[in-house]
Order: sequence, then structure tokens, then C-alpha cells
Amino acid sequence: MQRYFIPKKAWYDDRIRITGDDVHHITRVMRFTVGEKIICNDENGVAAQCEILEIDKDFVVVAILHWLEENNELPIEVTIVHGIPKADKFEIVLQKGTELGAHKYIPFQSERSIVIWDKKKWAKKLQRFNKIVKEASEQSHRSYVPTISNPMSITELIEESSQYDLKIFAYEEEAKVNNYHTFGSILKQINSNQKLLVCIGPEGGFSEEEANILKVNDFHPIRLGPRILRTETAPLYALSAISYHFEEQ
Amino acid sequence: MQRYFIPKKAWYDDRIRITGDDVHHITRVMRFTVGEKIICNDENGVAAQCEILEIDKDFVVVAILHWLEENNELPIEVTIVHGIPKADKFEIVLQKGTELGAHKYIPFQSERSIVIWDKKKWAKKLQRFNKIVKEASEQSHRSYVPTISNPMSITELIEESSQYDLKIFAYEEEAKVNNYHTFGSILKQINSNQKLLVCIGPEGGFSEEEANILKVNDFHPIRLGPRILRTETAPLYALSAISYHFEEQ
Repeated sequence: MQRYFIPKKAWYDDRIRITGDDVHHITRVMRFTVGEKIICNDENGVAAQCEILEIDKDFVVVAILHWLEENNELPIEVTIVHGIPKADKFEIVLQKGTELGAHKYIPFQSERSIVIWDKKKWAKKLQRFNKIVKEASEQSHRSYVPTISNPMSITELIEESSQYDLKIFAYEEEAKVNNYHTFGSILKQINSNQKLLVCIGPEGGFSEEEANILKVNDFHPIRLGPRILRTETAPLYALSAISYHFEEQ
Repeated sequence: MQRYFIPKKAWYDDRIRITGDDVHHITRVMRFTVGEKIICNDENGVAAQCEILEIDKDFVVVAILHWLEENNELPIEVTIVHGIPKADKFEIVLQKGTELGAHKYIPFQSERSIVIWDKKKWAKKLQRFNKIVKEASEQSHRSYVPTISNPMSITELIEESSQYDLKIFAYEEEAKVNNYHTFGSILKQINSNQKLLVCIGPEGGFSEEEANILKVNDFHPIRLGPRILRTETAPLYALSAISYHFEEQ
């Protein structure tokens, strides 16, 4: 069943009043008519099966039929820090990372990032990025839409990291040494409901200086298998492995 | 160090004669000059560090300096069967699946495939697809280039499947039932050097009829986490989880 994320403020007792882009999607893309059913989620993970009551040019009203108890969220909160790559690669990570259960994304202005997202460009980009994660959440039947923070410097990232239970970063050099820590040995250190920060470098990886700063601040270097992954593939490996570890063993 | 896959027939004692597209890549893309070093692999996984001796318009000759002992291959052979999706999605799977260690790809003409790859179109597509997996193998430091089979019907797929030790297929319905088999419980049934066949449906998933045929022929239905993945994300989840299971626990 098609799913829409509707902000809590549009929910009234047993009715929801849908406005904005979702009206276009309901009426034009899906061509739904009165009487058809959809699922609505609010931003806190509350979900309800609903029936379309009224369709107008600017809004759609649905009746809440019954509440759904469902939880497709990863048992730990995973935040992906991504050294800013080319924009199309970041979009792949947003879309597929959301399908794979990411909770939050932090773009990181890394030394080796080829592009810089200044404040002017960022506002427009963020709008587009938020649309991608909302649609991916709907499509993958999640009950939560991941958030995207403003780009951070390494200093801001270190400050942010104090809120997390465990912090790791993918380091290519780690794939080349013999006595590396397996990703599994690190994941065993985290439990349900804890927060994990996963840092992935941009196209050229983290610089040696960045790696040193991360290590000093209790980020564990990890490898993601012995093969060298592209910057946009690494977060997908990490999230898939985390899902496998917690949900499929 | 940059890596090139050079067919065995171009290797002579302590020299390799490189021709074709790689000459362009060495001289124009990487702008290597005489004396610089590269790694060459043959199709059997043999690898050598080499030095450039001679650069010509049509060929490059390198000297083999020493042999490399390396193995970045998954301990099991994983073949990805993919219900033919839109071509750009298949290319994502080829590129990222190769980074993640796939051994072989089989396009599968599924009931719900929107596109049909006829013989005429296929030859040209295959050329392009082979180039993608070769480049991805080089980039991810693999010692093997995955192969791509011709598209198969379900009958051909069932015949092919007799060569495998374990056969699984991702089935969306499996994500919805309560007493599903975890992916981990299935992976525990396979050992190093065995062959695993992983089948992923096209955009609409497998039809009920296809799922029944697969089940009757000893394919195990699995889920890849509780969230619904896009057709191009599912093979990447499967390969990442297999790498995590065998290489990172």
C-alpha cells in the first residue's frame, strides 16, 4: 500500500488533511480516487491505514481507519557521516542508505572533498535531499524519515560525536594491515537503542591528519571487507552489514 | 597502484604487451611514462607488479618486477541472478556488485521485467557491461573479473542452478511473514569454496508463479532485512552481508 509521511500538525482526531507535493502524488502520479486506501505516517513513527474521503486541487482529506503497529527500524540509531562527494553520489547514499535504515546523515567538509557546499548552495540542495529521503522512506516502508544535518567541519564533527555511544570510520589503510579489527568485533560492542556514528571519507578517503584526529577522539578505524569500495558504496556496505548483524543472524 | 586486467595470452616470460583500451587509459587518462609502476592481473587471478618499459601509440610493454600473492576474493563464489531491470539499474549492480565481490551475473528474463533484451541489443549491451565489471574489478583491487552470462529464461535458470551448492531468492512476501528464515540461518549452511546462487527480482519482484517454481526447485526464500529494498539495492545488501558473514565477523 502506498505510504505518505504527513506532519503531525495535519492530523485531527480521525482525519488527516494532506497538502503540498503529496496531493500531486496522490491525484496525478498514483491517480487515486475517493474510497481508495493509503498508509500515513507522522514524523514520530505513528502509522495508520486511511481511506481517501475528499480530493480537492490543493488538499486531500483521509479518514483514519485503524492504527498500525509496525516497526521496520534498525534496533540501533545509525548516523552516516559522509565526506562530501560529488552531489550525484551523495544522492545515491541518501536514497539507498534510507532504504537500508540510516537514521541521520551528516555531510562532512573533508580535506579531500572536491566540492564545497557553501551556505547559498546548501539551502537549495537540502530541499532536494530531504525530498529524496522522504520518498525513499515511503518506498521502503519505514516509519521514520532520516534527517540531514548542515555540512560540518572536522571540529564540529568531533563536538557532535560526543552524543554517540560508538564511533567508527572506514579507513582504506585498515584493509591493508594484517592485524585489523573486524567490523564484527566492533559491532559486538554496541547494543539495541544505542547510537552509532559511521564516518566514510570522500573520493580520495580521509587524509592522514583527519584519520589521526578521529583516532585521538575515540573513533575506531574499520575495514569494510578486503576490497576497496567507492565512496558511495561504503555506507551501503556498512548499513547492510549492520542490518545483517542485528536483524538477520 | 593502478591495476589492469591483461589476458594471459599477452604475457611472455618477464614481459607483458598491453594493447587495446588499456593503452589509452595508461597513456592518456593516467598519463603514465616509462619507468612508472602498475599492477597487472591475468584472468586466473595471477598478479604482478610491473614497470613500464616502452610506450607506443598502439601498445605498452611492461617488465614483470615481482609476483604478488594476494587474495581479495570472497571465500564462496556468489552468482547474482537479476530479473532484468532498467539498464541503468543493472549497471549499478554490475559496478557495485563487483566492488562487493560478485563472481558472476546472470540477467533473468522475468515475468515482471519491463524491458526485454533481445539478441541484437544484447551483443552491444554485453560489451558495455563487460567494460563496467573490468573497471570495477581494477578499481576495487580484485584479482578476478566477474563474468556475465547471456540472459536466461526461468527454464534455463533452473537448469543452470543444478551446478550450485545453495540457491536463494529474495522474496518480498518473506519480509512480511512472522516465522521467516533469517538470511544468517541460510548462510550458515554454506562453506568456503562452495557456490551460492542469489536471485533478485526485477522492479515488481518475482511473480507468484516464479516464486513457486523456484521453491519447488530448492531455492530458499529469504528476506534482506525488514525494509523493502529497490531491485538494485537488494543485490548490494546480499553481497555486503555475505562479505560481513565470511570476512568481518
